[in-house]
Amino acid sequence: MTLKFIGLGLHDGRGISMRGIEEARKCDVVYAEFYTTPMPELDVEWIQGVIGRKIKVLKREDVEEGKCIIRDAMERDVALLVGGDPMAATTHLSLRIEAMKRGIKTVVVHSESIFTAAASAAGLQHYKFGRTITIPWVRDNYFPMSPYDMLARNRAEGKHTLVLLDTEPKDGQIMRACDAVEILLMMEEAGRKGVFSKDTRIFALARVGSTEPFVIFGRAERIMEASMPEPPHTIIVPGEMHFMEEEFANLVAID
Amino acid sequence: MTLKFIGLGLHDGRGISMRGIEEARKCDVVYAEFYTTPMPELDVEWIQGVIGRKIKVLKREDVEEGKCIIRDAMERDVALLVGGDPMAATTHLSLRIEAMKRGIKTVVVHSESIFTAAASAAGLQHYKFGRTITIPWVRDNYFPMSPYDMLARNRAEGKHTLVLLDTEPKDGQIMRACDAVEILLMMEEAGRKGVFSKDTRIFALARVGSTEPFVIFGRAERIMEASMPEPPHTIIVPGEMHFMEEEFANLVAID
Repeated sequence: MTLKFIGLGLHDGRGISMRGIEEARKCDVVYAEFYTTPMPELDVEWIQGVIGRKIKVLKREDVEEGKCIIRDAMERDVALLVGGDPMAATTHLSLRIEAMKRGIKTVVVHSESIFTAAASAAGLQHYKFGRTITIPWVRDNYFPMSPYDMLARNRAEGKHTLVLLDTEPKDGQIMRACDAVEILLMMEEAGRKGVFSKDTRIFALARVGSTEPFVIFGRAERIMEASMPEPPHTIIVPGEMHFMEEEFANLVAID
Repeated sequence: MTLKFIGLGLHDGRGISMRGIEEARKCDVVYAEFYTTPMPELDVEWIQGVIGRKIKVLKREDVEEGKCIIRDAMERDVALLVGGDPMAATTHLSLRIEAMKRGIKTVVVHSESIFTAAASAAGLQHYKFGRTITIPWVRDNYFPMSPYDMLARNRAEGKHTLVLLDTEPKDGQIMRACDAVEILLMMEEAGRKGVFSKDTRIFALARVGSTEPFVIFGRAERIMEASMPEPPHTIIVPGEMHFMEEEFANLVAID
């Protein structure tokens, strides 16, 4: 029948659009998954109330295999609620392709996404961003330098870099801005391209998509010590800033 | 008091989030402007009904000067409704900085943005995009080659390029995908870097953010002849595609 991918925004679910609510209300089954975009402040009760449907939260395996979702969507109208823009994760694109191949109609209801919202929250122009990077936790034998190399390229071109943080917790901890800065400094020590130091001025963000987003701008060293709200955190390493971007940065500068 | 920038999404206003509605309802004055992101299908009546406030639509000058908005926000809670993500336009950032300098609290409520929604609608991964370009109308003495040069750079790096179309109408016409393709072919003729030809396979999109978005994939020549819904249109020139991206492209291919 129909499989609808509906974005919930970034914070507590109130980023869902009116179109999203209208589409979800018309479904027979409403699933949700929160591993691709962790939403610690998510208010499932509130969403259930607004939609008027019980929400079944899926585990990672259920989404990646996708069998139950596709099977349901062969017979009924199914919604899958996810954080951010529902097509940002490859898993969801894969699921969508699978559904289309079986003749199931698919619907995508977009929402705010960290890809644009972080830029907006930091007063930076969207089109000036280079490729986004993700900082993974350092684990035994796993210390990829590709994010650092990409950052070096963006900086050489004067572009801003959106730095996403590993969404997998390590030892029960979600990665914070200070952890990511520490890893970036380690990468600099290994890569030595001179693109990131304790003096690099960066933006650190938290609670993007909430009514009280947290945005600070300062030297990496100071960002590491700064007190921030709970994760998810995001970092932006700006490239060449337009005077208006500079002006905004100064308004949220620490130190 | 407070100045709130609230995103309406891309199509008819139903892209506004629940947070956006909650914030707008608390305001004394609700303005809207639609020149930075044209929304031909906008349903102002519907938004007024949902918010329970009369909406005053501003002209370009009112927003760019910003005087009435700032003056109002010094004394009352003011909302400014705009298409897409409300901070994508420099005009709004400028207005926000002006407000912050005067001690007015500012709030940003994001929404779906063409920067992410177009990528999602075309089944393409967000982080694989290079810098966005905008195709302006060809006018006497005005034929900038910078969008073409940027496209050439993105293509050389294997990156996808989001191609936005001039939002100003020319002779009363909004730019369509076929117009933009024609201008890109003229640019190729002038620039001769071999980055865009009649055989280049591209995505053409319309009605992104609606329940029935229109997405096709095919050679530029075929896209020019294809029948498409009314504008706004968007184009994506893909770079190197992942097999899953290819798979989706084939599902929406024409020819």
